[in-house]
This record gives sequence, structure tokens and C-alpha cells, in this order.
Amino acid sequence: MTRWQDPALSPAERAAALLEAMTLEEKVAQLGSSWPGNEELSGNVAPMQDEFARGGTTPGSGHLTRIFGTAPVTAAEGVARVAQLQREVVEGNRLGVPAIVHEECLTGFTTYGATVYPTALAWAATFDPALVERMAAAIASDMRAVGVHQGLSPVLDVVRDYRWGRVEETLGEDPYLVGMLGSAYVRGLERNGIIATLKHFAGYSASRAARNHAPVSIGERELRDVVLPPFEMSIRDGGARSVMSAYVDLDGVPASANRRLLTGILREEWGFDGVVVSDYWAIPFLRTMHRLEGNAGALALAAGVDVELPDTQCYGKGLLEQVPEELLDRAVLRLLRQKAELGLLDADWAPSGEAIDLDSPRNRAIARELAEKSVTLLANDGVLPLRAEKIAVVGPCADDPLAFMGCYSYPNHVLPRFPDLGIGFDAPSFVDALRAELPEASLVVREGCPIRAEDRSGFREAVAAAEEAEVCVAVVGDRAGMFGEGTSGEGCDAEDLSLPGVQDELLAALRATGTPLVIVVVSGRPYALGEHPAAALIQAFMPGEEGGGALAGVLSGRVNPSGRLPVQIPRSAGGSPGTYLHAPLGGNSAGISNLDPSPLFPFGHGLSYTSYEYGEFSLSSKEIPTDGTVTAAVTVRNTGERAGEETVQLYLHDVAAQVARPVLELAGFTRVALAPGEAARVTFTVHADRTGFTGLDLDRIVEPGTVEVSVGPSSADLPCSGSFELTGPVRRLGHDRVLSTPVEISVTSD
Amino acid sequence: MTRWQDPALSPAERAAALLEAMTLEEKVAQLGSSWPGNEELSGNVAPMQDEFARGGTTPGSGHLTRIFGTAPVTAAEGVARVAQLQREVVEGNRLGVPAIVHEECLTGFTTYGATVYPTALAWAATFDPALVERMAAAIASDMRAVGVHQGLSPVLDVVRDYRWGRVEETLGEDPYLVGMLGSAYVRGLERNGIIATLKHFAGYSASRAARNHAPVSIGERELRDVVLPPFEMSIRDGGARSVMSAYVDLDGVPASANRRLLTGILREEWGFDGVVVSDYWAIPFLRTMHRLEGNAGALALAAGVDVELPDTQCYGKGLLEQVPEELLDRAVLRLLRQKAELGLLDADWAPSGEAIDLDSPRNRAIARELAEKSVTLLANDGVLPLRAEKIAVVGPCADDPLAFMGCYSYPNHVLPRFPDLGIGFDAPSFVDALRAELPEASLVVREGCPIRAEDRSGFREAVAAAEEAEVCVAVVGDRAGMFGEGTSGEGCDAEDLSLPGVQDELLAALRATGTPLVIVVVSGRPYALGEHPAAALIQAFMPGEEGGGALAGVLSGRVNPSGRLPVQIPRSAGGSPGTYLHAPLGGNSAGISNLDPSPLFPFGHGLSYTSYEYGEFSLSSKEIPTDGTVTAAVTVRNTGERAGEETVQLYLHDVAAQVARPVLELAGFTRVALAPGEAARVTFTVHADRTGFTGLDLDRIVEPGTVEVSVGPSSADLPCSGSFELTGPVRRLGHDRVLSTPVEISVTSD
Repeated sequence: MTRWQDPALSPAERAAALLEAMTLEEKVAQLGSSWPGNEELSGNVAPMQDEFARGGTTPGSGHLTRIFGTAPVTAAEGVARVAQLQREVVEGNRLGVPAIVHEECLTGFTTYGATVYPTALAWAATFDPALVERMAAAIASDMRAVGVHQGLSPVLDVVRDYRWGRVEETLGEDPYLVGMLGSAYVRGLERNGIIATLKHFAGYSASRAARNHAPVSIGERELRDVVLPPFEMSIRDGGARSVMSAYVDLDGVPASANRRLLTGILREEWGFDGVVVSDYWAIPFLRTMHRLEGNAGALALAAGVDVELPDTQCYGKGLLEQVPEELLDRAVLRLLRQKAELGLLDADWAPSGEAIDLDSPRNRAIARELAEKSVTLLANDGVLPLRAEKIAVVGPCADDPLAFMGCYSYPNHVLPRFPDLGIGFDAPSFVDALRAELPEASLVVREGCPIRAEDRSGFREAVAAAEEAEVCVAVVGDRAGMFGEGTSGEGCDAEDLSLPGVQDELLAALRATGTPLVIVVVSGRPYALGEHPAAALIQAFMPGEEGGGALAGVLSGRVNPSGRLPVQIPRSAGGSPGTYLHAPLGGNSAGISNLDPSPLFPFGHGLSYTSYEYGEFSLSSKEIPTDGTVTAAVTVRNTGERAGEETVQLYLHDVAAQVARPVLELAGFTRVALAPGEAARVTFTVHADRTGFTGLDLDRIVEPGTVEVSVGPSSADLPCSGSFELTGPVRRLGHDRVLSTPVEISVTSD
Repeated sequence: MTRWQDPALSPAERAAALLEAMTLEEKVAQLGSSWPGNEELSGNVAPMQDEFARGGTTPGSGHLTRIFGTAPVTAAEGVARVAQLQREVVEGNRLGVPAIVHEECLTGFTTYGATVYPTALAWAATFDPALVERMAAAIASDMRAVGVHQGLSPVLDVVRDYRWGRVEETLGEDPYLVGMLGSAYVRGLERNGIIATLKHFAGYSASRAARNHAPVSIGERELRDVVLPPFEMSIRDGGARSVMSAYVDLDGVPASANRRLLTGILREEWGFDGVVVSDYWAIPFLRTMHRLEGNAGALALAAGVDVELPDTQCYGKGLLEQVPEELLDRAVLRLLRQKAELGLLDADWAPSGEAIDLDSPRNRAIARELAEKSVTLLANDGVLPLRAEKIAVVGPCADDPLAFMGCYSYPNHVLPRFPDLGIGFDAPSFVDALRAELPEASLVVREGCPIRAEDRSGFREAVAAAEEAEVCVAVVGDRAGMFGEGTSGEGCDAEDLSLPGVQDELLAALRATGTPLVIVVVSGRPYALGEHPAAALIQAFMPGEEGGGALAGVLSGRVNPSGRLPVQIPRSAGGSPGTYLHAPLGGNSAGISNLDPSPLFPFGHGLSYTSYEYGEFSLSSKEIPTDGTVTAAVTVRNTGERAGEETVQLYLHDVAAQVARPVLELAGFTRVALAPGEAARVTFTVHADRTGFTGLDLDRIVEPGTVEVSVGPSSADLPCSGSFELTGPVRRLGHDRVLSTPVEISVTSD
């Protein structure tokens, strides 16, 4: 047994020992990756011919890319394939070091037949970190079982413009919500043996006009106060071991060549000691897209990108002459330490894996719970739960389970290339599920129009169905896809926030019938619904394979809706960008501008079939030092007729500061389950650090002054509020600052 | 005679002597300003009751605000009023120091009955700095004659988002064009005794979603490479003596409290020694809108705002306890030096002024020349010049001269408050002018629809007129106004780039008639015209009181159109922001994003009734040092049948750099007048400094490498190109860098 195989030594010691044993060429090979062709993977399918199949120009042995996800394989086939490829990697390098196998896992393990969980924006709508962590743990245990080591999730980009195609992959527009849910997801992966990859570091969601890869206009303060906090939280509180560099440039400097970001902030300030991987082809893009001068590989490596994904375009032999050996060593050591941690350097390592059920009952139960908790009731004049017997179900998303699945789900990401294959499991559509929920009702189902095409030929039948029904349920929204194949998803950016295709017209025609209209939007981004008054409005963000049942459960009344908006619902289709997180002049500036950007439904909004009352608000003190803590407590009572879960939200407002500050910032939230008549005392422990921001000198500081604390059911409905004074000197914060707001709940009955 | 009155001393010495004679209170009073009520100014009009009339809380004696422009006065009344108020100011301060009198002058001296020149975006469309300078000289001589000292122009904000209401006030989307035209305007004012005020310093045009006053997301590199160059050029090459601080915050720091901007960059880097004035109420807004902590006056003064406009809200006695005397002295000295320069400290100073003709034939001739040179022919299938005898003239801008005037013109800025008053001079509408141009033709004139209201009642008549005509001319666009009263202008921001009201529908209805359609857009911003194929398309940016005649002259053929687009014409109404000035990934990213932001008509585009040919391109060398010069020469020939003026444009492209750089940047342009068959050799002297940009370390540098040079009639039509190598070390540039590209022209006949 060599020294680097010795399990008695630390991973760092083993990595150092292995590095010492390596030639320069062997080091370089570790930093590249391989994406083997998938032709032989399954006899059922044609070889993949598109850009995703192209192999690296130089095989790298650092990572193996997407062995499961690029063509449909069964779990058994995938396990065998991983084993075979790992043997090839081991035999292909003198020292016999296996590769790290990575796979996408945004809406679950992205492979054929695996559970499709709701998309990330739906997790965000649950405001439920513990549930997200359970989902991630389930994903991790499945991936670990079949031989995968690293998952390319979560997406921590804070939404800045709803038109961006990847909004569905995010956790919404609030950095604290993104950070809390993102770090929960990371814990779920990391505590179950899978390396989490935080993406996209950083700024991707703020691209100009929300176009994929477009430049980002941003200053240091917005970067540090809005974009970066979820990454810091997910590293420190989540334990993430990998970070993916973004495609975009920030103020002219591409993230993947950005030393200040990848090394200065990430490692020197935050102390991150994991591995930075490039987004797929982000390194060659430095040259071909960003047109940087010099060797792209050398620029990326020097900035702090350790491993090139998905194949080796720039981190091959070219690096040898381009960079000093110390730079190579720095990156290789980071990677080898992870290989040691994963057991890949153990003397007895051998490829292993188990052909498990990738859509297990455990998975489906979690997927269902997430979906149910994410469905958000925006408005309801009493028409819901449905009591009607004659129901028209209209709209292009009503009877299509794929419309409920996100862009990075296997069925929408890869299956379109294999049109003859089923999705590998049973996923009832909303219509299927509603029939099951309401066996007595008579449903008339009409598509009305397609999601995207300008085809009004189905309007007449849809309108006729609505006219004859007691209530019409219209299910409209998106279809996730890649690079323009869908209306939401990577590269599927929108010019404005009107519903795709002629769906707005369909809704107008249905409303004109006079039949009470329930609009259900199943989408990857919020759409402008200002012109759609309806009897009830429901928002679901691609709720996954169990989404049909979840939605049907809400409509039937079996499920009491409890989702909350992680993004605003805009009033009008133009006028982007703008989110709830803004200084006074970023909001309703009527009088100064003729435009009013206020939303139709605010951040955090969501109704229920029961009612809640907020009261007995108290703050533990009126004055605390700039490193002190205050507790804010409120009593929330279920004053309605049925059990429900209320999401209590705490917001801070810094009344005056040395820079312009947001009007409101979410600083705490929790779900509370309450039976009718039950009350809960909810206590938030707010540390002064949570009021911190990036000041004039670009340090993160806590400033003395007045802070208002408000609590309520949404950012625009805050019945309880008070304020406290921060006293003492301005305090500079380091990486040890308090990132979260603990919440205690005690429930009492009336 | 006191020392400060001594004309033998320099203005700086006199200012210092006067400062020494002042008490602290007298110093503070100099930094404030007064906006006296206007009630008694004219017996013809009711007192102004709106926010513009409110007087300062403390009278300041630094500036007198808008004595001419807030209520309709004749020149004689205005002169008398200035004299009276100056006497009050002189009598009101122990030392007898008069005030600086400032007035708006964007589209000309903003007072009743004065010439309304085209709006700034129309000057930009002329690409003619010499003409702009002549206009500014005429404005200055008028203002000087009636006792005004300072003009609150030009607007140097570089357009970043076409939805912004103030786009019409700008010089377009290219920093070099803005800088060249802006500094020409400044020279016109300053060389004729009027202090020019550069506004708005800085970043105002980049507000979020283009909403007036909304926050600006911007990094240092974009600020320095795009936003600031026109200011630097107008100070160094134009000689501007005043700068106005902007309303907005940049990355959280309000411009009017931004020491780095107002003192660090403006004074320490650029050596500016004039006076910084606040935008109207920008100082109290620091507290009331931006919610900064502390005394707003003290924050602004410390940052570098010398004088508060328009009245004294924060620079009154409150400053006494808030700031050290050195800070007061610094600002007062700057202001007093200007007063000395203006003769206001001379012992024999007395208020004077002359009741001149403010709409003189000289003025009208310049206004006409500007208007004619600004009209831009976008497309023409041969229908123009008009030869038809039966012409339908349709659209809400056809017969309304006010639709041709900008937001800061007196008729649109103030007159709406005095509905019974005429505009004070004769301004023929487009219809009037076309009748005069085409006396033989029969014109049928129909409004079709209003500019803004959703009123389709006039469609039927308009369509009927089009059906019966040989050709239909539709004149559509904007009405300038303030704070939502118009569709363009300050506070009149747009949600998207569709034509206001139902004008898009009117165009569709007219096109459906089959009658050849000539669309004339008279607007303050570019509108999306992608769905409006027409026989001919003309863009005019509010061409002023002579605009009707100018447009009619282009349609009749008397004028050969020569305007060029200083902003792109977008293809579709959504998808903002985006301008021609972008790195590769900011452009057509088809494949990466499904959206294509390429314009319908590119920056610099404009047709003529003759044709030009480009050839014989040469570069003086293939290699120059990083402080060298290369000359690029091209021959342009008028190959058509009639005389015309061609605007030859030179663009640079830095092939690879240490940061992401624009695909193209305008670096030189000139108009060339050519008779049929004539040719001109046009030689651009390009200094290496013109390739400079803000590098990774935030220094402005010239980097070695390949630079492509292209010449042609627009940014998307560049038939001539070559490249040169910059050699040697990276060179850091200071404030002495070369800012412009001289052009030589020699004309030869065939």
C-alpha cells in the first residue's frame, strides 16, 4: 500500500502524497474530464448525434461526465457502464486513480426512469428547508447507490429578471430564502455522500434583458448583498464541497476568469477549500465568446477554476507550457483530497453499484409532499374547493404530465431526442388526477390551444365546454425545454411576461363566457396576470411527476394549499426587470415615473382554505448593541374551520443607512401547522448581523440606527411591527457573521 | 474699490478676497439658490400653483432659478424681472454680490416665444458637431443678451434603455457620438459667455427598467467606459464650467452624495475646477427618497455638490453646525470665481439686458438646418420623393406642431399650464408644410387616433382616406410631456417599445388597405417597427418648430435626407435593454438564447435619395506602438443623380482583450457633401489612445494586440476594413489621453 492509499492519513495528506508521485502530465490529466460517447449504452436508442455527445479533445481523468443522463439507461445498465468506464480510467493512468462521476440532479437524479421532483422554484414556494433537505437526501442516496459522486445542483442564482429562462431552476428572488433552502438542499446531498455543486458562481441571473449568457451590469455592493449570500450560506451552513463558475461576464470580467471572485472572495474571504468546476464549456467560451486575450485554460486555472467540465477542451497538454506548476498543484491537490474523501484512493477501491428502484415509493411520497406544499392559492372568491358537478377543464397544460416537469428533468432534458420511449414511470396528468379526486364530477376536457404555437383553432370547442359547465378550470403555462425548444428553461428566455402563445387570448375568451373561471398557471416563471381577474387563481411552478395529483388535491379540497410566492406575480407584461428587493426609488415611483412596477401579487403571498390571525407581537428589547440579539415573537392563530400550515414571515427595514437600502428584506420564516382553533407562539432570534450590509467602503457592516421588524403572512401584509435601535460603533463583519435567524415555535390550543 | 472688485486680479484671487470678507452665514447663503414666485410676472396668466412654483425654504443668493422659464413672459418682461430680482439679491446681502441666473436650454432657451430647436436626439441624428455648436452659440447669445449666465444643458447621459422617458433629451447610445456632439454644444455656450452644465452626473440613463429615478446596477468598468467619457470630453474639449449631480443611486450610492464620483473622478482625476450644482431637489431626496442616514446637505457638500438647486432646502443655516468651514470655503470659492469670471463682482456691475427677438431669422434658419439634417430615411422602395397627386395624410402627429417639440421646450414644458396662450410664434405643422411643398397635390388629412388614448373611432375615416389615395403618409409617434402627461419626456417612461396608444393598430389598418404606406415616426425614443413593413419609413426625433417644413421637404424631395440613427430601431417591443454597444454575448445569441436582440435598423443607419460607393481603403501602417497613430483613409463617391451628404463612420474592434470588449465602437465620423459624380478622400487620424479601455485593474489602458478598423455608412454596413497591431507594453492612460479622432476630407470630381 502506498502512502496515498493509507486510510490512517488525512485526505489532505493522502492527496499531497499522490501529487508527489505524479508527473506533470498526470497532474494535467486530473484537471480535465471525459464525456464518453453514449452510443453503446442502450440498444433501444439511436446514438446521440447532437452537441451533447461530443467527446473531449483530450480525455481527462478528473471527472466522468453524465454517464447516466445523456441517453436512456436502466439503473442496471448505468451501474455497469460506470463500472466499465471507471475501469478504463483506472487502467488508463499509471497510478490507477479513478474519476469522480458527476450527474445533474436539479429535479432529482437526471436519469431515465428516476423520480422527477418539482422544479426548484416549487421547493422555494414551500418555504420548507427541512422538506427540501429530505428530498436532497433521497436524491443523494439514489445517486450514491449507483456509483455517482457529485451532483451539479443546487442553482443559487437569485432571480433578478423574470424573463430569464432559468428562473424555474432557482429558489426565487430573495437571497435569504435562496440561502436557507439552498443550504438545506446542500446538507441533504453532502450528509449522504454526494458532493454538492453550487451554481452558477456568480451573477448569471442578472444578465442583460435576461438573455442567456448576456453580460451582467452589476456593482460590488449588489453582488455582495444580493448575489453572493446564498453561496456563502451554502458553503458555511451547508458544507458544499464544490462550486461551478458561471458563463457570464460581470462588468466585463467573465466569472470563469475572475480571480477576485473565484479566489479572492470564495477562498480567501470565505475559506472555501473544495473544488471549483467550470460550467460546461465555460473555459473555451472565454476565448470564443468573451474574446479574452491569452490561453483560456491558463486564465481559468489562474483565476481559480480547478477542473474543466464537461470534457477537456483547454485543460489538456496546452496547460503544460502555460502555467507554473504551483498553479497546477493547487488545483490537483483540491481534487485529490475529494477523491480521498470519497474513498477513491483506497487500496481496495473497486467500482460498485446497485440497480435500485430510482422511482421508489419513498421518492414519490417526498415528491408528492413537495408538490402539495408548493401549490400557491393566489385568489379565491369561494369557488374553491370545487363543488361543481359539471366542470370544463381547458388549457394546454391540463392533460400533459410533461408540462409539469422542469427543464433539467430527464423527460424534458433528454427524452425529446428519443421520441419512441416512455418516460419510464407513471405520471398522471392533472386531468387524470382530477378525475380520481372527483369521481362524481363530469369533466369535459379541451386543450384550447397549444402552449406556444399561435393556433386558435381549439378556442371554439374550449369556449363551448366552458359555456356548458358550472365552472371552468383553465390550466395554462409553460413547457420546459432547452435552447428554445420550450417556453421556459435554459436558453428559453422571454421577451416579456405575457403567457406564451395565445394562452392570454384563450383566458380572455373563457372569461367572456361568464362561467366562473379558475385559472391554474403551471409555469417556470411568473407571468403577468393583471388582466385576468378570475374566480380563483392558482400558481404552481412545475410540480413534477406528482404535480397532477397535488394540484387536483388542492382543487378538490383534499389538500389545504400552503405555498407562498418566492417571486412576485407581475401586473403587466413589460417593465422588467424589477423584484420585491429594492430601495424606495426602485418601487412604486408614481409621480416621478408614470410607471408603477408594483406587483399583482407580492412576494411571500399565498392563501389557504382556513384563516389565520396575527397578534401579541413583542420585541425583547428596544435597544441592542451592534453585536447583540433581539427576539421578535408573534402569536398566530388558526381562526378557520380546517387544519392548515401558515408560513410566518419576518422582514427587516433599515430606516436610514449610509447607502440606499431595500425597503424590506426577508430575514426569517417558518411554517406552522395549526389545527382549527390552535395558536402558536413563534419566536425569531434576530442577531444584529442579520441587519448587515455592504457599506460605502465595501466592507460588510452593522450600522447603528433604527431597524423596523415586521411579521405577517406576506411582504405586503405585515400586521405586526415594531422597531429597535442598534447602538454602539459601526461593526465590521467577517465570514463568521451570523447568517440565519433561528425560529422557535410552541403550539397551544384554545 | 475692494480687492475682490479689482479687475486686475485673477478671478481666483478675487474669489479668495471676497471669501475672506464673508461671515459664515454669508458663505452659506452663497451655496443656496432662490426660485422666486412668478405670480406678478405677467398679468396675462394665472399664478402657477404646482410644485415648480414652490419657493426655497431659505432664500439663497448663489443662483436665481428659472426667472424666464416658469411663466410666460416677453423678453422685455423677463429682462426687467431679472434686473429687479438681481437688485433684491444685491440689496439683500451685505457685500452686494449678485446671483448667477440659470435657465434650461435643451431645445433652445426655455422661455416663452423663443425658438424651439429640435430635441437633442435629433441633433445626434445629424452627426454634425459644427452645426450643433452653431445652434448652441445662437442659444447662448440670446440668453446672454437677456441677462442669463448659465444654461442647464447638455444632457450627456448615454442611452442604455430606450424605454427611459428622457431618451429624447440625450445624444444617443454611443459614448463617442455623445461626447463629440456634447462638447460641440458646450463650446457653443461657453465661447459665447454662458456656463454650460453637464448633466446628469452620472448614470441616470441606466436606471432599472428605465424607470425615472430608479436604482442603477452598474460596475466601475461600464461606468468609466460608457457613462463617463462624454463628460470628460465636454470638460476637456468643450470647456464646461458646471456639472449637475444626478438623482439616481449607483450600486446603492446616490450620485449626489458620491464623493468618489463628484470629487475623486471629476476633480482629482480630471482636474475639473468649475461648480457642481445639484439636480433640482436631489439633495433633499438623499433623505426623503434614498433614505440616507445623516444631514443631507452635509452629505452632498462633503461629496462635492457646491450649489443647491433650485431653491434652498438643505444648504441653509443647517449647514453651519454640520460641516467644517473648509468644506464651505471650497464650494464658495468655486462659485465666487465663476461670479468673477462673469463680471458679477465688478464694481460697475449693474443688471442689464436687451429685449431681443428670441425667435430671430438666424435662429429659425439654424433650427431648420438641424431639422432637415436630422430626418432619417430608414427604408424606401422608391415611393419617395412623393410623386402622387392624391395623398392621404393620417396620424396624430401630422397636424400638431407640439408633437414636434421636445419635453424641455417651453411649449411642452410649461405652456400646458397656460391653455389660453399661443406658443408665441408661428410653427407650421407637417400638414401645413406639405401643402406648401406640394401645391399641386390634393391632401386628405385624418387624425386616425390620438397619440395616447385608446380611441379607435377615427380609424374608419382614416382607412377610407387611405383607400382613396394613391399613397398614404402616416405620421405617428409621441407627445412630449412631464411626469406622465406625455408619452416621452421626463417621467414619461415606457413599459415596452410599442407605439403609444392604438397607433400600431392604426398602422396595421392602413397597411391592410393596400395603398402604398409611408410611415413617418416623430418620436422621442425609437419604437419597435418590426411588424410594420411599409413602402417607406422615416424616423424624426422631435424636430422642433421647423420640423414640419423639414419633414415635408424630405417627402417632397426638396431635401435629400441625410440623418443617421443615433439609437437603434428595435425589431420587437420587449426585450429591453440592449444597445449596439455590447460584447459578443450581448448581441445575437441565437443558439444560447432563443431571443435575438438584433435591431430592425442598426446604429448609424440612414438612406439618401442618391447613392454612395466606398472604396480604396488604406491604413497607414500595419503596426504601431501603444502610443502611436494610424491613419485610415477611404474614398466615398456619390454615384447617384443628385447632391447629398454622406456620413462616413469609422468603427474599431478590439479582437481580444483582458476583459470582454464591445464588438464595435464608433471612433470617428464625418459628414461629406458630394455632388453627383464627386468623390472625397476621407482620412481619419486614429491615435492608439482611442483603443483604450478600463482594464482588469480598473486603470484605463492601451493593450497590445490586433485592432480591426472598419469604415462604412452604418454600424452594420462596413464595406471597408483592415487591421493593425498595437505593439509594446500595456500603456496606462491619464486625463491627457487623446479623446477624439480628427478627420480630413479632400473632395475631387470625376
